[in-house]
Amino acid sequence: MAVFAASGASAGVAKRLDLFGVVFVGAVAALGGGIIRDLLLGAVPPYALTHWVYLVVAVLAAILLFWLHPQFNRLRRTVLVLDAAGLGLFTVTGTLKALDARVPALGACVVGMITAIGGGLGRDLLTGEIPIVLRREIYAVASLLGAGTVAVAVHLHAQRSPLIAGTALLVFVVRIVALRRRWQAPTPPPAVLPGPDPGAS
Amino acid sequence: MAVFAASGASAGVAKRLDLFGVVFVGAVAALGGGIIRDLLLGAVPPYALTHWVYLVVAVLAAILLFWLHPQFNRLRRTVLVLDAAGLGLFTVTGTLKALDARVPALGACVVGMITAIGGGLGRDLLTGEIPIVLRREIYAVASLLGAGTVAVAVHLHAQRSPLIAGTALLVFVVRIVALRRRWQAPTPPPAVLPGPDPGAS
Amino acid sequence: MAVFAASGASAGVAKRLDLFGVVFVGAVAALGGGIIRDLLLGAVPPYALTHWVYLVVAVLAAILLFWLHPQFNRLRRTVLVLDAAGLGLFTVTGTLKALDARVPALGACVVGMITAIGGGLGRDLLTGEIPIVLRREIYAVASLLGAGTVAVAVHLHAQRSPLIAGTALLVFVVRIVALRRRWQAPTPPPAVLPGPDPGAS
Repeated sequence: MAVFAASGASAGVAKRLDLFGVVFVGAVAALGGGIIRDLLLGAVPPYALTHWVYLVVAVLAAILLFWLHPQFNRLRRTVLVLDAAGLGLFTVTGTLKALDARVPALGACVVGMITAIGGGLGRDLLTGEIPIVLRREIYAVASLLGAGTVAVAVHLHAQRSPLIAGTALLVFVVRIVALRRRWQAPTPPPAVLPGPDPGAS
Repeated sequence: MAVFAASGASAGVAKRLDLFGVVFVGAVAALGGGIIRDLLLGAVPPYALTHWVYLVVAVLAAILLFWLHPQFNRLRRTVLVLDAAGLGLFTVTGTLKALDARVPALGACVVGMITAIGGGLGRDLLTGEIPIVLRREIYAVASLLGAGTVAVAVHLHAQRSPLIAGTALLVFVVRIVALRRRWQAPTPPPAVLPGPDPGAS
Repeated sequence: MAVFAASGASAGVAKRLDLFGVVFVGAVAALGGGIIRDLLLGAVPPYALTHWVYLVVAVLAAILLFWLHPQFNRLRRTVLVLDAAGLGLFTVTGTLKALDARVPALGACVVGMITAIGGGLGRDLLTGEIPIVLRREIYAVASLLGAGTVAVAVHLHAQRSPLIAGTALLVFVVRIVALRRRWQAPTPPPAVLPGPDPGAS
């Protein structure tokens, strides 16, 4: 979660926000996905607001990044790895919480995915970017895959602890392999434009 | 609803999002208004997440558009007509659901309108545009007119079925006529700027 | 609250939105913070939708601004003062409502601050700007200070009426002094870039 906060804070620094802005965007990146999940499930007030540890860790991570961001850039690889681990954990816990709230399987997968990508969506909206997760790379798709695995496994009455660990690991591995191999989701076929007459040249 | 999904997917394609992004923006455009309505009314988990048909239709419509968008552009007129029909239905069902949840008339109109325009707002925010509904054309105003009609009719104990059909038709007709006649809401009077001295020329 | 509506409407006018857009952004700026607060606390339907006075005042203020905005620009100083007063009141009522809903102190401060800055966040997102509150000036920090004061005072069983008046005044004064003295939150230290070799010139 601290890594998500650092990613948000890092986006804030890149946009030259002030200390408050950097911390706010960091907190949104870290806690936003869980807060949206809790709003969708009616679990209010959201967990992130009633358990101060989450808030404090997110704020501290963002403040650290604010002061140390030049050094942070050198850790880019480590950050991506930790981020992939967070992706897996957020997906699994979000999907399980939705299933426990009696959301049907398909809806629970959506909730699980939104738990994982919601913070990044909020971060990108606040910093004026089209969300990166919508543009490229296998990120949300890895999350959806994990969420689907959880939904099927719960339906088959799998045990919780190995399920959580196993699926989080699955999402992590898919994400890391996708990064290494530069897998991309397909982009739209280009529209057939009239274009300049090739015979004119 | 599939038309709203197609409008979202179309916006995603225009921004060169990948397949996941196109489907996500399509789903937000189709289901976002209803989800905001349910959050405002405390009807959680939202209907769109507990009834998989909605999710599947939205996703399929977006995927279809992803592959077929060059052809889709030729159907522009049909799309605007279907979109106007969706505007009417979303407005009426949203307003009724709010009244049933004991929201007072004025607030229920707002909820009905947000049900109708919320998906488009989400679509435009995710693709980095100032929402089109705020900038021009009679769109939200047609929706508000329908919502007001519903609120008055319910107050007068009108029967449900003719009310739904009649008001949805009303919104549809207003929207279509507004499109044909290019009706626009007024824009702000320009500020009186000092400007270059006209005597100088 | 009318001042928040005017700030939203003003942003809408600056972006050349139509009358509906100006009113909508005005209403979001005025009521958005309170609506987010109520969603986070599960107090649905939100207060702003069930008490029509709020809605009507916000809409009227936005319409007035739509017609009178050239004159409005001359009142800039008055507007900043009234806005600071709103900042204080929104912070205090938001924090108290969260504490009454049994949100722990730290979370309640966040809710109070979001009540105060949420409308401005919504306004800036709808008009395509990176939220001003994240970029500069002591605005949210004044709000947080007030929220913290409320949380501590409630813990010490302070009386409500003087607490509300006193803390709202405190936020107001901090904000006004910050404006006068041009206090700013710190911005990030610049990254050490390789840069052009100075010896080359």
